[in-house]
Amino acid sequence: MARTVGSDGERTQAATRDAAAALIARHGYEAMSMRQLAAEVGVQAAALYRYFPTKQDLLYSLMRDHMDGLIESWKAARPAALGPAARLEHFVANHIAFHVARRHSTHVSNMELRSLSRERLSQVLKLRTAYEKELRRILRDGVEDGAFRIDDVALTAMAIIQMITGVIVWFRPDERLSVEEVTRNYLTMTMRLVGANAKQEERHVRDRAEFRAG
Amino acid sequence: MARTVGSDGERTQAATRDAAAALIARHGYEAMSMRQLAAEVGVQAAALYRYFPTKQDLLYSLMRDHMDGLIESWKAARPAALGPAARLEHFVANHIAFHVARRHSTHVSNMELRSLSRERLSQVLKLRTAYEKELRRILRDGVEDGAFRIDDVALTAMAIIQMITGVIVWFRPDERLSVEEVTRNYLTMTMRLVGANAKQEERHVRDRAEFRAG
Repeated sequence: MARTVGSDGERTQAATRDAAAALIARHGYEAMSMRQLAAEVGVQAAALYRYFPTKQDLLYSLMRDHMDGLIESWKAARPAALGPAARLEHFVANHIAFHVARRHSTHVSNMELRSLSRERLSQVLKLRTAYEKELRRILRDGVEDGAFRIDDVALTAMAIIQMITGVIVWFRPDERLSVEEVTRNYLTMTMRLVGANAKQEERHVRDRAEFRAG
Repeated sequence: MARTVGSDGERTQAATRDAAAALIARHGYEAMSMRQLAAEVGVQAAALYRYFPTKQDLLYSLMRDHMDGLIESWKAARPAALGPAARLEHFVANHIAFHVARRHSTHVSNMELRSLSRERLSQVLKLRTAYEKELRRILRDGVEDGAFRIDDVALTAMAIIQMITGVIVWFRPDERLSVEEVTRNYLTMTMRLVGANAKQEERHVRDRAEFRAG
């Protein structure tokens, strides 16, 4: 068992995850074989099975890590003391930054839920729900304190997540807009989508200027 | 050649398309074999090759039909004489209705661009661009006549399309909301997202009432 930990093993696992995410994003989970993956990583297939006893274990590991990472990144970015508009801004900015930096695992997470076993699917969906709840809480707080005008909090949360995850479908960092410019545009659209009123929008612009300056 | 047309052949082709879209949505294009597809349709593999000489021909046919159908449905739904807000409403409603009714081919279209040959990819992307241009024109008209407040027309068009196509990811018709209620919510969110001003929103609500009554 000693050989499964330590830096060599960790490097192999990390390389395996990266290669698997890229292969699955390119060809689909079912079309990828562990043999093909091993060749890509430059190890024997047996070495992979040490870390990921089945292909399904590997897929689950990718998806769980993706969601754990997303939730962790939001916990680190989440401002405790700010109002709903500023919290929504941080949520959107963190979500876009996280996904743009993880194009492959985002594709895997979005496309291969179909390939998870029922039990593991329910584990991954639990993590998704926990993450979406964070957004719903922000939206609900905004409705309660009059900052947002929203007809259906759950629907609006889904619409925002689809809209901002969609950035990775078309955005390439070498195009006419930088990721910062794209994010700024999506922040403005999100604020309008939640019916943030003009007064709130002014306050939010001021908060943002302070946030960027700080 | 006579046997490739006529009602039997057409039925087989239609059944093949439907079965292929379902199989690809479930397993991915690379994982699907023509043999598996033939078994699903209940014919010999040779019968499929008569209509679709290669698996790639079949995929291209699915994707082209999906985009042709979307563009046709919009041409039929597009109101010529109405203002930008009402045209935007028709665009969103048609887009959601079209995709909710074609869950499998929507998944194929969104996930399998990666599997098209370069030349065919460029054909499908041309159709996408033509469709997106329709939305960009509505948004630009709305900016010009003061109905919409939009910072970047191209980005806003992408955001709207991602948001409204995303409905099929989570929407199931037997859940708490009907497709009409979901559409109504998305129309409101879209109007806010494009910064339709209050006056415009009132006019738009009136137009909609007339449209539904008419």
